[in-house]
Amino acid sequence: MIYIVGVGPGSKDYLTLKAIEIVKNSDLVVGSKRALALFDIDEGKKVILSKNLIEELKEIINREDLKDKKIAILSTGDPCFSGLLKTLLKLGVDKKEIEVISGISSIQIASSKLKISWEDYNIITLHGKEDNKYKLLEAFNNQEKVIFLPNNLNEDARFLIENGINPNTKIWVLENLTYENERIRAMSLKEISLSKFSYLTVCIYPV
Amino acid sequence: MIYIVGVGPGSKDYLTLKAIEIVKNSDLVVGSKRALALFDIDEGKKVILSKNLIEELKEIINREDLKDKKIAILSTGDPCFSGLLKTLLKLGVDKKEIEVISGISSIQIASSKLKISWEDYNIITLHGKEDNKYKLLEAFNNQEKVIFLPNNLNEDARFLIENGINPNTKIWVLENLTYENERIRAMSLKEISLSKFSYLTVCIYPV
Ligand SMILES: C[S@@+](CC[C@H](N)C(=O)[O-])C[C@H]1O[C@@H](n2cnc3c(N)ncnc32)[C@H](O)[C@@H]1O
Ligand SMILES: C[S@@+](CC[C@H](N)C(=O)[O-])C[C@H]1O[C@@H](n2cnc3c(N)ncnc32)[C@H](O)[C@@H]1O
Repeated sequence: MIYIVGVGPGSKDYLTLKAIEIVKNSDLVVGSKRALALFDIDEGKKVILSKNLIEELKEIINREDLKDKKIAILSTGDPCFSGLLKTLLKLGVDKKEIEVISGISSIQIASSKLKISWEDYNIITLHGKEDNKYKLLEAFNNQEKVIFLPNNLNEDARFLIENGINPNTKIWVLENLTYENERIRAMSLKEISLSKFSYLTVCIYPV
Repeated sequence: MIYIVGVGPGSKDYLTLKAIEIVKNSDLVVGSKRALALFDIDEGKKVILSKNLIEELKEIINREDLKDKKIAILSTGDPCFSGLLKTLLKLGVDKKEIEVISGISSIQIASSKLKISWEDYNIITLHGKEDNKYKLLEAFNNQEKVIFLPNNLNEDARFLIENGINPNTKIWVLENLTYENERIRAMSLKEISLSKFSYLTVCIYPV
């Protein structure tokens, strides 16, 4: 059985009891260094995923000696939001072979920090979805509320400006949520287009 | 300080470590019977909310003797999704006076059970939002994927049928998620319009 375990935004505080229990009872725990560090796991049970994660996951799910084992695959945030669930299904894993454990998504933490309700927002991920740039543009054009996961934030801001959005438009930029170096700022598209950001960034419009 | 604490869909398994810690360190813990039962709380610190919750919350946030206390208000699911955050802001609580602790939403558990990714779905809540019926109808008309929280599910199904949606259209009906009496069924709008459902129900289209 493969357990796809949501581990939340990064801080241990947002682990669920279920995530902790599943990891404890698994024969193998697979994840990024960052995700594995959240748990207390025997060294022998850990598999660290690198940048080449698709290949590494493929190897693990096809290993004959693991067929009857309990494998926990750690996914940051919620596995059902732009997460590892999709990746595993694309690799051909049968839905019957997996169980998914929900985790707190970065979308939710961003909402909790600004004290907004995310049912009032369009939610758009640009992560590996080039085409969603146009949805984002449409939301800005219509002045609709939107929470988005950027692809490359300064490029995304430039795209909006080049397509007619006022460069002085301000949005919330929320970086490294729940980590020591968490940073939440209101910035104009112009400023954003000239800055660099963490990989861990969520944006919210309007300010 | 008021902590609005998300307690997840219902089972203790989905509590976060942060929710447990905040509740432990609060002077007063306010919530439905169902939510309070998830924690180990001294009787003297509990305040049970009834159906009249708006009035009861208003009283608590205005009590002079609680001004410098830590008050935890429990919210099922995620407080930032169709949850108590909005209710408290409407009552005039200052954003500076509150901290919000994200919780696992029913939307997420529903997605985890069906192993779908919710970024691919429209998310609509009919909870206290009559007008969203028309958004729901539009999604069905356009055969767009949608996850929705019904208002009154058999009435909602009748509304869709009366407005031209094929009564044989099937949707997923997910009741009492994470509880002992959890039930997940694919049902036609016709069947749904003739049945009764739990207050705790999420629906997903298509099957
Ligand atoms: C591949 S997606 C995974 C999303 C994840 N499944 C979730 O539910 O949050 C990675 C993106 O999530 C966002 N993200 C994840 N953790 C974050 C954090 N702690 N702070 C800010 N953004 C975060 C960033 O936009 C990051 O580029
Ligand atoms: C006022 S809304 C609160 C939503 C909550 N804040 C959340 O994030 O799930 C209440 C609705 O949430 C849904 N819900 C909450 N818990 C549920 C559960 N355990 N199973 C199914 N639906 C649930 C139902 O649609 C219910 O009518």
